[in-house]
Amino acid sequence: METTLEQTRVTNLVRLLNPRSIAVVGASADPSKAGSQALASLSGFLGKLMAVHPREREVQGFSCFPSIADLPEPVDLAILAIPAQHCVKAAAEAATRGIGGVFIISGGFGESGVEGAKLQDQLAEICSATGLRLLGPNTSGFINPRAGCVASFVPGVDRLPAGNIAVVAQSGGVNLSLSFLIERLGEGISLAVGLGNAADVTTVDVLEMLAADTNTHAIALHLEGVADGRKLYDTLCKVTPRKPVVALVAGRADIEEFAVSHTGNLMGSRQRTVSALMQAGAVVVETTDELSQAASILARRRLPPKVRNGVALITGQAGPGLLIADSLKSSGVEMPALSDETVTKIGTLLPPMTFVKNPVDTGRPGPTFPQIVQLVAQDSAIDAILVFALSEPSVLDPVKALMPAVDLTGKPVVFGTLGIGRDMDDAMKALRTCNLPAMLGPERLALAAIVLDADSRAQWSLAQQRLPAGVPTGERLAGAFDEDRAKALLRTYGIATPRSALCENRGEAIAAFQQLRSPVVVKIAATDIAHKTEAGGVVLDVRNESDLEKALDRIAKIPTVQPGRVLIEEMALRGVELIVGGVRDPSWGPVVVIGIGGVLAEALSDSMVRLAPLSRSDVAAMLGGLRARKLLDGFRDLPECNRDAIAEAAIAIGRLLEEHPEIAEVEINPLRVNKDYAVALDALVVLA
Amino acid sequence: METTLEQTRVTNLVRLLNPRSIAVVGASADPSKAGSQALASLSGFLGKLMAVHPREREVQGFSCFPSIADLPEPVDLAILAIPAQHCVKAAAEAATRGIGGVFIISGGFGESGVEGAKLQDQLAEICSATGLRLLGPNTSGFINPRAGCVASFVPGVDRLPAGNIAVVAQSGGVNLSLSFLIERLGEGISLAVGLGNAADVTTVDVLEMLAADTNTHAIALHLEGVADGRKLYDTLCKVTPRKPVVALVAGRADIEEFAVSHTGNLMGSRQRTVSALMQAGAVVVETTDELSQAASILARRRLPPKVRNGVALITGQAGPGLLIADSLKSSGVEMPALSDETVTKIGTLLPPMTFVKNPVDTGRPGPTFPQIVQLVAQDSAIDAILVFALSEPSVLDPVKALMPAVDLTGKPVVFGTLGIGRDMDDAMKALRTCNLPAMLGPERLALAAIVLDADSRAQWSLAQQRLPAGVPTGERLAGAFDEDRAKALLRTYGIATPRSALCENRGEAIAAFQQLRSPVVVKIAATDIAHKTEAGGVVLDVRNESDLEKALDRIAKIPTVQPGRVLIEEMALRGVELIVGGVRDPSWGPVVVIGIGGVLAEALSDSMVRLAPLSRSDVAAMLGGLRARKLLDGFRDLPECNRDAIAEAAIAIGRLLEEHPEIAEVEINPLRVNKDYAVALDALVVLA
Repeated sequence: METTLEQTRVTNLVRLLNPRSIAVVGASADPSKAGSQALASLSGFLGKLMAVHPREREVQGFSCFPSIADLPEPVDLAILAIPAQHCVKAAAEAATRGIGGVFIISGGFGESGVEGAKLQDQLAEICSATGLRLLGPNTSGFINPRAGCVASFVPGVDRLPAGNIAVVAQSGGVNLSLSFLIERLGEGISLAVGLGNAADVTTVDVLEMLAADTNTHAIALHLEGVADGRKLYDTLCKVTPRKPVVALVAGRADIEEFAVSHTGNLMGSRQRTVSALMQAGAVVVETTDELSQAASILARRRLPPKVRNGVALITGQAGPGLLIADSLKSSGVEMPALSDETVTKIGTLLPPMTFVKNPVDTGRPGPTFPQIVQLVAQDSAIDAILVFALSEPSVLDPVKALMPAVDLTGKPVVFGTLGIGRDMDDAMKALRTCNLPAMLGPERLALAAIVLDADSRAQWSLAQQRLPAGVPTGERLAGAFDEDRAKALLRTYGIATPRSALCENRGEAIAAFQQLRSPVVVKIAATDIAHKTEAGGVVLDVRNESDLEKALDRIAKIPTVQPGRVLIEEMALRGVELIVGGVRDPSWGPVVVIGIGGVLAEALSDSMVRLAPLSRSDVAAMLGGLRARKLLDGFRDLPECNRDAIAEAAIAIGRLLEEHPEIAEVEINPLRVNKDYAVALDALVVLA
Repeated sequence: METTLEQTRVTNLVRLLNPRSIAVVGASADPSKAGSQALASLSGFLGKLMAVHPREREVQGFSCFPSIADLPEPVDLAILAIPAQHCVKAAAEAATRGIGGVFIISGGFGESGVEGAKLQDQLAEICSATGLRLLGPNTSGFINPRAGCVASFVPGVDRLPAGNIAVVAQSGGVNLSLSFLIERLGEGISLAVGLGNAADVTTVDVLEMLAADTNTHAIALHLEGVADGRKLYDTLCKVTPRKPVVALVAGRADIEEFAVSHTGNLMGSRQRTVSALMQAGAVVVETTDELSQAASILARRRLPPKVRNGVALITGQAGPGLLIADSLKSSGVEMPALSDETVTKIGTLLPPMTFVKNPVDTGRPGPTFPQIVQLVAQDSAIDAILVFALSEPSVLDPVKALMPAVDLTGKPVVFGTLGIGRDMDDAMKALRTCNLPAMLGPERLALAAIVLDADSRAQWSLAQQRLPAGVPTGERLAGAFDEDRAKALLRTYGIATPRSALCENRGEAIAAFQQLRSPVVVKIAATDIAHKTEAGGVVLDVRNESDLEKALDRIAKIPTVQPGRVLIEEMALRGVELIVGGVRDPSWGPVVVIGIGGVLAEALSDSMVRLAPLSRSDVAAMLGGLRARKLLDGFRDLPECNRDAIAEAAIAIGRLLEEHPEIAEVEINPLRVNKDYAVALDALVVLA
């Protein structure tokens, strides 16, 4: 059976990142040279290590060959410690020799101007033509501690312990920062990669490889910009059910480009990235510290997919317990009440007057502490248990206190503590040996539950039935879209609009008014007027013919290429106004946004985005993520909103974008919603 | 000169927390007893230590006396390791013997029911009558490492190093948690106190004492509820200019009680606490981790008071630099552009193609790094400098890189780094020895600048001229307030209202309509209708007498004790609608709230609160803190808002509450604001 180029690429990536043999090209005995540092860093390498140098026979004790072609075997990895301008030739030789991949130390490529970009393009071409893989250029490299493979040159990286967390970072500096933070937590890494310019090997490639890597139990992902978002999304949808992925997205203060619709303004590019990652089942965090902590938790434990998890807290000290409960509540994690049965049983184990709700405040832990943890863990409302106690080895052995509950129920029990100096190290190590996560400080303990819950909920949402992606219909829309035509298109997608009539002149308008139910709204219908209200082209609450005449007079004064053309429409019932729109993102493809309507919501950018196709649970998550979500539930004198009707409109907007690739933007603003239905009061369609 | 009781209380608090002599009452040789543990914890005490026991002559090598009265001298501190029911008698004896203060180990007081509360009240009475001070009860105690005074019994507290951070925590558990976190940062404490039930010694007492304590350079404050907020506010206003205070307030997920006005709903009690602390010059953070980090920064350095500081970042790695810039921008910290001169000079020190803006990305630090830091520090737009570089001792000595810039400019330069294991410890210690703050990881480095800026801005705001607090006028308002009377009161405080007429019947209404400028709004004016709009009692945009008749008909249908009574008012020009209101908080006194008007803003609780009296800079900070602040600057087709007019209204509301203690709540909803003025369209006054 023939091996396809794609298969070769996959195999070669594994060879590059898990090499059994390495050649350092440009090896040197001069310790100031990169070729020397590369060899030194690889002193712990467990496989075959050889050197390439035109003249030397041996460097630092390793056999040296005059060229890549002369290597006695096709090594898995060639590290190119040679100037940029020689790298293209070396890569071509490596491909010919059957080498798996190359890693380039020197800079001077895409990041450094036109000449460098040319070199980088040539390297990428060699890779795509031959199946050779290239990491970087412009990266600090990678570390695979199990293989003793240290292709990175910052001091200490050779001492990163092997473990089960993979780091995949767009930036080399962040890759190392995360690896160091993970080491500080007492955890180890399976692989740490900085992708740099990503001329060949991308985030997607590494994620796909890690999905099958048995040493990797969780993936810590760092992203700056995302070039092919849709591919990343599709990959993550496949990877996250197998391996938890925690992501940190740079660019928090990103400024949005101007867009025709409000929809465009509502979506920051980072918001799209974060939303897509969550939709694909990843957990998104805000700091490197959270990223390393979250990955360390999820590498040990996941909760099964569930729409919402109940978390219990047992604390030996009330004050820190309150802070933990604060963190959980602010993050929307539920702390359900314990059952009466649980409370009664715990009551027999604690002194009277002790606070037995959730949190359970035991006071300073006593001998019954392990039983209390077991009782709480057995409560059916509880999916995960947090235990906090200041370090008092003579009073509480955390392993003995927690392990029975884990053994009994299989539920995750996470310990949080604080103490002096290194006093806690033994207990922390003992916990980790039993695969029990342990966190330092109240809010970090809360973070453990927040992350377990977020992962479980994301996986639940990902598993919900999703309509198949829409397929382009073949029919191609063209020409200008005014409101009337836009609404007609939306109606074919099942979106309700008010009864209306498009009138070319005053006579038609009067006739239409007699047919429609009063009151009506009269709107200018001219393809050259984008912002009808701002132009004074919308008259509300027209109840009789005299009002109608006045309205038509007023609109007639607006200069336009289509004078006298108006849309007369029955006024909709009161309701809550939303914006539901979609844009075709260059990286992420069709994206749907839902926001609260009106100028205030726009000023707040209170909106949620998801990639199409949407499931109903996606829309539920979007509505639940709006800061002003209270408005949907019958706030003050507003009606309760029909969430199903909103979901249908949003799903339809996604399908419209998928079936008509010629549409750049579509927007319903407002979608007016009450208890019974949702109706599009205005619509905008923009073709690409 | 006679010593007043108040002076005695102050002196005795210093004796209690900085004792030169201690007696342990209930001393014991049985290691399971509190009286034994107390003596053991004090093994490092530098002063005189003695024991009280009815029968023993010596315990653990210390001289033992039969009773407090028999003590050879009035010790500064008596630790009562005796059952709760004996504590009252012991406290009375301690007061008689001239002892400074007592600390009670046992529980069983206010936290444990009616009997305990009685004992606690008796203790409090002894204190207030005699000047004896009492810490607790129901607390883990306090630690004063310089005095070797460890009045706390969790293992390891005796090893907390002496330093310059004071911890003042409402909860004993949080006191210890914070102390341990501070120790982990390599810092030490001057005093760590858990206040517990605070029967006598309160947060305010300790803060006042610490303001004069030369060993304390920063105060880490933890609060749960605040009983006498106004006193805490007044104290902090005096303390924070002398010592930086960082505060953590529990109760983030606090649920607000129902209130008559929207104003009441807009203010959570935690929001009031946080706002008051900030207004009094404190820096408020969200986690114990941030609290310990922030205190450690401010203990070393403060920025002078300034309305806004410029922060520069110099980074050896681009990726972490981007994350630092993200954190700064999300927190509203300014990173101004460097001057052309600075950029040009730096350009000569770095390879071409290097990114020299702010942040300055040097690439891996080279020999010119210290010069670059100096150049950036000399830039007049820059008040504080952050430097991030992964730990590479052979490439960068942080002290040598940073110290010259500090010496040259006096500006704070903060180093952030990450590396393997304990490799960085030497560099971190060396930095601290030079009083240079050092942070682990990108976001923590950003936190340093965020905290320095927040402290500086809070101090700037505190120093702004403030109107003197209003004095009650003596005149007492009484009776019911309808809209018309409420507006009349507001007008006496300089707040504009629309031209209007209160009409008792239809004839008066028609006459008034003829006098006013059309269009007008017709509103029901009945003291028994609180929510006029919801009752259908407001008709807008009445333009002619026929409309007026219809409006009066409609309002006449609403059942009320004052049928036919209406307020007719000229319609105001378009503008942005705000809510400006005030309540008399039981703890904080007169509090003013500003929010965006409308149901959406209410759903979002988008509001800011401050204690009266307000300065103009307080109002500026309130408006700048609204999430929807964009709306004030001419967003979309809304007019720009006159911020001075808003400030005048808000300041007046504060003054009204101060001058009329009989007013419980006042609210302008909406205050309509445009470029020229602000006008109160509706008003509510509720008497207590």
